[in-house]
Amino acid sequence: MKESMATVADLGEFAVIRDFFAPLHETNAPGMVVGIGDDAAVLAVPRTQQLLATVDALVEGVHFSGTDDPFRIGQKALRVNLSDIAAMGGLPTWYLLSLGLPAATSTAWLAEFVRGLQVTGAEFGVRIAGGNITASSAGCSIHVTMFGQVGQGRALTRSGAQVGDRILVTGTIGDAALGLAVRQGRLQAVDEADRLYLEGRLDLPEARIAMGLAVSDAAVVHAAMDISDGLVADLGHLCQAGGVGAQVDVEKLPLSAAARRMVERDPELWPLLLTGGEDYELLVTATEGALEILETLARQTGVPWTEIGVITSAAEIEIRQQGQPMSLPQKGWRHF
Amino acid sequence: MKESMATVADLGEFAVIRDFFAPLHETNAPGMVVGIGDDAAVLAVPRTQQLLATVDALVEGVHFSGTDDPFRIGQKALRVNLSDIAAMGGLPTWYLLSLGLPAATSTAWLAEFVRGLQVTGAEFGVRIAGGNITASSAGCSIHVTMFGQVGQGRALTRSGAQVGDRILVTGTIGDAALGLAVRQGRLQAVDEADRLYLEGRLDLPEARIAMGLAVSDAAVVHAAMDISDGLVADLGHLCQAGGVGAQVDVEKLPLSAAARRMVERDPELWPLLLTGGEDYELLVTATEGALEILETLARQTGVPWTEIGVITSAAEIEIRQQGQPMSLPQKGWRHF
Repeated sequence: MKESMATVADLGEFAVIRDFFAPLHETNAPGMVVGIGDDAAVLAVPRTQQLLATVDALVEGVHFSGTDDPFRIGQKALRVNLSDIAAMGGLPTWYLLSLGLPAATSTAWLAEFVRGLQVTGAEFGVRIAGGNITASSAGCSIHVTMFGQVGQGRALTRSGAQVGDRILVTGTIGDAALGLAVRQGRLQAVDEADRLYLEGRLDLPEARIAMGLAVSDAAVVHAAMDISDGLVADLGHLCQAGGVGAQVDVEKLPLSAAARRMVERDPELWPLLLTGGEDYELLVTATEGALEILETLARQTGVPWTEIGVITSAAEIEIRQQGQPMSLPQKGWRHF
Repeated sequence: MKESMATVADLGEFAVIRDFFAPLHETNAPGMVVGIGDDAAVLAVPRTQQLLATVDALVEGVHFSGTDDPFRIGQKALRVNLSDIAAMGGLPTWYLLSLGLPAATSTAWLAEFVRGLQVTGAEFGVRIAGGNITASSAGCSIHVTMFGQVGQGRALTRSGAQVGDRILVTGTIGDAALGLAVRQGRLQAVDEADRLYLEGRLDLPEARIAMGLAVSDAAVVHAAMDISDGLVADLGHLCQAGGVGAQVDVEKLPLSAAARRMVERDPELWPLLLTGGEDYELLVTATEGALEILETLARQTGVPWTEIGVITSAAEIEIRQQGQPMSLPQKGWRHF
């Protein structure tokens, strides 16, 4: 049997942990008193800080396919969670990993998956603190609990949007939804470079940690969240949390060059850009007076803000195109 | 369609959260600054405390079947994690829940599962702080991240066993393994009362929180863990962490009346008692001088300790029956 064709069942659980996950463990990681290998991690939260904790999962057959690159899956599993820490204005610190693996999972797949964890962990400065591996009778499932820290009272929350607030987003919207449609053969990118860009946006969300920290430090927004279920759906969650409505102008949406080329070729794609999931950009509301500060933070972090609309007292999200209300077939990603 | 036959797909993700999980949320839960409903939970860890964090999963087809009682599954999903907090000497506080649910999951199943979470959460004083729900193309999977707190430097760890330490366990050993064999029709209990008792031990692990706290406060053990993979396998983990060996006398093992009746009828069951998983009892090592203190803690908490053997300088776990080495077909539960 070739080494690369060995399976996790050949190795057994403890050898899998020893050979693949224990090497991820770093001694002397900040605040990690006890890491991998005991019944629970022991973690020290500095006195001035509050703990952030979030969990998100990638499930085979739902979020990825068995033929997708495991190196990218490992990176994405951390990045979707890092985006939640960014949305709270936090600094990510540690994570726990709970894996369901089919017995036939190859060690080659696992090695690349772990390399993805390692690379993204190093990039964002987050350390594995523990986890769990169980057999799965069906596909692979990856559940990551991500921890972060935020100064007391400085967490950015979804509630708090005020009527008259400007609505802003980081980066560009709709790339991941287009990337997924292209990968699944439902759409064609304009050219190969665009295809690579859009699929890259699907596979490697940015996780706007630096901007989240800057916004928390500046205490400059009323409400914040990350966009994972699609702009319209998540803006709906933000408005619901604040008891407000919103008006968004489609013309103002920040699009990548690749997305703009596709929507110019086919204007029917607008609803997909507005409702497709997995942007992992930040969505905030702030007073008009705060815009200059946000612009300064954009220059400092290199992450652009774009104003896309305004918070209203209406009980709905109004999407306008050329000044006219636009109707959408559905608001966002449906899990069921 | 009858209400009880509705599925999670009929409701949709957000209605599922609103109707089933949001009601679990308690305002003013200690330390929970932001709970369910934002991008991450915001949690306050008291200055004197360190954070404990652990994750464990129950997967359909591996840990439970689709016909098992969802009320018990909800309870067990928390209890297996609470046992890890107990093994560290901690006080459990909050949890995150990451669920993979088939679209056809009935709301009746979900309601009973959530009732199990509610009952066990109330019993142990742990509050839900957030979570995630995703569709699952296969069976149901339940990943729980459990948090606890422990005084600085007071966490009980697996390492630290010293040659000459006595080995002790709480409660009784082997009940859950017998309960599983009975449920699966591989064994017959002596009578119906025994069957109910053994299956109850399988379904509702005790999670020895009070004893874990007492042992941590008394600073009375060298090493501690909970027994989830079987006594022999977990004692092996404890010995490996401490660089020591162990000798265990089978005659000393604490057995329930039901287990004793079965092993008296069939002495071939001894290996199953020693290696079967899911006891969720505490396993500790302590000096002979500490035994009296442990006995006092047993009286105070109502949880008995039984001395089963001694830590040695050998590189192995020796199991003795009537003074003779006993060989075991396998050491413990294999996940793959």
